[in-house]
Amino acid sequence: MYPKSILNVIEAFKYLPGIGDKTAERMALYLLNLDKVQTDFMADAIKNLKDNTKRCKVCGNFTSDDICFVCNDPTREKNILCVVEDPKTIIAIEKLGVYHGMYHVLNGLIKTLDGLDPTDIRLDKLIERINNSDFKEIIIAVKPCLEGEMTSLYINNVLKDLNISITRLASGIPMGADMEYVDAITLEKAFDNRKKIS
Amino acid sequence: MYPKSILNVIEAFKYLPGIGDKTAERMALYLLNLDKVQTDFMADAIKNLKDNTKRCKVCGNFTSDDICFVCNDPTREKNILCVVEDPKTIIAIEKLGVYHGMYHVLNGLIKTLDGLDPTDIRLDKLIERINNSDFKEIIIAVKPCLEGEMTSLYINNVLKDLNISITRLASGIPMGADMEYVDAITLEKAFDNRKKIS
Repeated sequence: MYPKSILNVIEAFKYLPGIGDKTAERMALYLLNLDKVQTDFMADAIKNLKDNTKRCKVCGNFTSDDICFVCNDPTREKNILCVVEDPKTIIAIEKLGVYHGMYHVLNGLIKTLDGLDPTDIRLDKLIERINNSDFKEIIIAVKPCLEGEMTSLYINNVLKDLNISITRLASGIPMGADMEYVDAITLEKAFDNRKKIS
Repeated sequence: MYPKSILNVIEAFKYLPGIGDKTAERMALYLLNLDKVQTDFMADAIKNLKDNTKRCKVCGNFTSDDICFVCNDPTREKNILCVVEDPKTIIAIEKLGVYHGMYHVLNGLIKTLDGLDPTDIRLDKLIERINNSDFKEIIIAVKPCLEGEMTSLYINNVLKDLNISITRLASGIPMGADMEYVDAITLEKAFDNRKKIS
């Protein structure tokens, strides 16, 4: 019953994750109150998104050029490699400002060890890159879950004969967490990995 | 640290109501996984929204033409007028399928009786329309709140000398509500407006 112009925007917003009928309707009607400059900016940004966003030829990070800002930076430490699940993790780590090495984006995690095709998540590219480079340490920074464990084990297995230190980010109780709300698996991990107070 | 193409979409999504940094980021990255056909559809829909959405010259409803689907429908009852706050209410009422009269969109409610400018919320258009038409009943369907009450009283005051029945949608306890969660004002209203069981 809305005119087509509004129905189209409602339909389009429903493509977005977590946006249902009601929210899409509210957002579409809200757009009507914005300036034309703003809605044009939004339309152009969406139109150009896929064409102007590439993946870095070296690490797989998002980039507007062939090579991303990390791989292009001559001041980065070229012998440490951090393996992440997606480019979002790179943003999160870069915000910390404590890591100055390189990255490799996997594009997902191993879902099952049966019928694993390492090319699916760019593991082949990772192995190839490591063989052709001079990395001293590989830090696996995928999320701690079954798929994360399998992916870490797989990478460790393939690389174990090379003279490279392979580490995994610590898992345990997050800082500031209330002990009673920590889930059982995390708590068990925290016990297993307990550290001597020095 | 994201390329400009992604940052622009994140920025644009933050124009939307209730969308903060994190959600805008999630939605922008999600768009990257959609088909180009879908993102183009979204971009075009947003681009055309404001240009192709007009307000009905008669009632103020959203329309793609000069006159909306209700005002254009010869089968509607031309002597009943329902006054609503915004076009969204028309959609809600039309979904019921029980009302077959005409509508008038106010574009908001009276915020204060001091310094009231009836042109702000198209009250002048309403009065003009009523004077030039043959309405027998005006149903005021604005939300029950202080501003809604003021708006109803104002309309009633202006029209009281005309031979028109002016009604207001009943307020009270919503169907299916748990009594203990009904707020005090609603409960008081429900007592005041109690109905004899016939």
